[in-house]
Amino acid sequence: MDVMQAAAARAAEGKEVLHLEVGQPGTQAPARVREAAARALESDRIGYTVALGIPELRQAIARHYRAEYGVDLDPGRVVVTTGSSAGFLLSFLSCFDPGDRVALAAPGYPAYRNILTALGLEPVLLETEDEDRFQPTPALLDRVEGPLAGLIVASPSNPTGTMLDEAHFKALVDYCEARQVRIVSDEIYHGITFTGRGVSALELTGSAVVINSFSKYFSMTGWRLGWMVLPEELLRPVECLSQNLFISAPTLSQVAGVAAFDCKEELDALVAAYAKSRALLLERLPQAGLDRLAPADGAFYIYADVSRFTNDSKAFCTRLLKETGIAATPGIDFDPLRGHQTLRFSFAGKYEEIEEAAERLRGWLA
Amino acid sequence: MDVMQAAAARAAEGKEVLHLEVGQPGTQAPARVREAAARALESDRIGYTVALGIPELRQAIARHYRAEYGVDLDPGRVVVTTGSSAGFLLSFLSCFDPGDRVALAAPGYPAYRNILTALGLEPVLLETEDEDRFQPTPALLDRVEGPLAGLIVASPSNPTGTMLDEAHFKALVDYCEARQVRIVSDEIYHGITFTGRGVSALELTGSAVVINSFSKYFSMTGWRLGWMVLPEELLRPVECLSQNLFISAPTLSQVAGVAAFDCKEELDALVAAYAKSRALLLERLPQAGLDRLAPADGAFYIYADVSRFTNDSKAFCTRLLKETGIAATPGIDFDPLRGHQTLRFSFAGKYEEIEEAAERLRGWLA
Repeated sequence: MDVMQAAAARAAEGKEVLHLEVGQPGTQAPARVREAAARALESDRIGYTVALGIPELRQAIARHYRAEYGVDLDPGRVVVTTGSSAGFLLSFLSCFDPGDRVALAAPGYPAYRNILTALGLEPVLLETEDEDRFQPTPALLDRVEGPLAGLIVASPSNPTGTMLDEAHFKALVDYCEARQVRIVSDEIYHGITFTGRGVSALELTGSAVVINSFSKYFSMTGWRLGWMVLPEELLRPVECLSQNLFISAPTLSQVAGVAAFDCKEELDALVAAYAKSRALLLERLPQAGLDRLAPADGAFYIYADVSRFTNDSKAFCTRLLKETGIAATPGIDFDPLRGHQTLRFSFAGKYEEIEEAAERLRGWLA
Repeated sequence: MDVMQAAAARAAEGKEVLHLEVGQPGTQAPARVREAAARALESDRIGYTVALGIPELRQAIARHYRAEYGVDLDPGRVVVTTGSSAGFLLSFLSCFDPGDRVALAAPGYPAYRNILTALGLEPVLLETEDEDRFQPTPALLDRVEGPLAGLIVASPSNPTGTMLDEAHFKALVDYCEARQVRIVSDEIYHGITFTGRGVSALELTGSAVVINSFSKYFSMTGWRLGWMVLPEELLRPVECLSQNLFISAPTLSQVAGVAAFDCKEELDALVAAYAKSRALLLERLPQAGLDRLAPADGAFYIYADVSRFTNDSKAFCTRLLKETGIAATPGIDFDPLRGHQTLRFSFAGKYEEIEEAAERLRGWLA
């Protein structure tokens, strides 16, 4: 947030900013989604929906799992949420009791630990390693002292972009099921992948909570729409919680979201654009002296070790922005333990900006 | 919810249902709001906004307080939320610590106590009285044993429709300020009032959290848009919580919501329609034998004592629906202590349905 505010302040002064800090697509929702929304604006009352979401959307999401993962899913297990944000809140409240300890990878999305803390749960950071693709492992979980109630898995991960392959994901699932540790699987970057498709926890187990979103692959950020796939026993608690905490997800977004699943061609073209920017950065960053990069399997991030240049990633980012106009995110936002020596570069923005940033970075680091 | 499901099941069988159970306007958003949304769909990327909401909307809300209440309000104190639902979550999390006890009126909106409980807070029900318009009083608060951290005030109230006048509201504010009890003032039915305008906590104190919504007066239910007005010291905590828990309120709703404040004529016509339905029920219900009604100052509800007819409001509602097609809400939903002898009739629906319901009710109760 500080980087974004500094970047905005710089832009307000009329100075150029190259946006490699953004965490959202720069693109609109697909045309058919916008058309469906426009039609609903004309014809629909746009009242509350039932708490679990409109049936058409729950069915479309279930069909998506058949088409993309080969999984048969009862639409009754799908819950439409107000973005993945609501999915996290509902899953943490329904799966865990106050004081429960929930493991998660460092580096990782900071809102996980902030939401856990706000709800009186205890985040337990796993110091993941480069050789494990910065993902949790049974060995890391074994090293945790004291009981665990849950594990958050994010594949592809923000900020590293790394994925768990099926074997490694299965090992985590087996470990957790044997110990009654509930897995909450954040799959919001599925669809934006470059080295094979993302494996869903749903392919491996019926006991995990799967969280997904229309904000990334579907390019519907501000529509605040997401979904969860739940084990049977959590459906009724989540329905009650959702009714009380949210009433329902935004209606126009739900109605329009149904059309998102008919936009594969348009959306895959966006992924192809990300792939081009990713390839550029994977070529140019090492030339600039940043050759320790996490394998960018998916999402739109490259996580770079900058320990050769700094021991204070926040100050480094501030100076980078000031001297080159490049906005990047300090690793300390994602990893309070070791993020002082890392940066996250996003390639969700414009190709030309990313290309220019790579060029300036080379000169600056030299 | 059970009533709504039974009513929906009955409708699905092709049987008539007279909807006096609904808690939302049956009308669309105002024309200008829908037009603004349609324009934004064409031109806006609909990405995330800043966590506190777009400045144009915060400014429009602040101007609303000047125009409607004569209060000068710094737009910086306004926080745009994903409906009032998010407002409750953010206010409870930012104002209270786990285990804190929060007083609220019974009868009252059931989500208050459910959200409090979900967050590890303890709801303390105040058994309000008819002669106090079913509102909290210093005397009732005095009778509470043990410490209180907060008080939820709802004026107009759901389910009773009753309001606190300025003197009674001021007495509550003074009582709470003297004891450092935080007031959370639910003002979502402001604008839908029949016996004078609703008094805002903002007119009386700077220390209360004010919660409002675009779902009732502004007829934007499914848009999931609301706002809070916060004391200065809560702004930063709420900004952080909101960023982590919600990212931002739905963008299209925010952009379109700015236009809602230019639709007074259209919206006041809806209130005039509610007033007509209210007058009808206030005349006909006593003729049907329901003469103990809470004073329906605002909102679109009439809360009726049915102790002459039943001691089990839920069973009574089930039979009422089955034998007459009238859906109404049992008081037990709002008041676990005494609601077995009360019903809530909503007049948010169609005049003709309400008129027909009044007629059938008279025959049935006779």
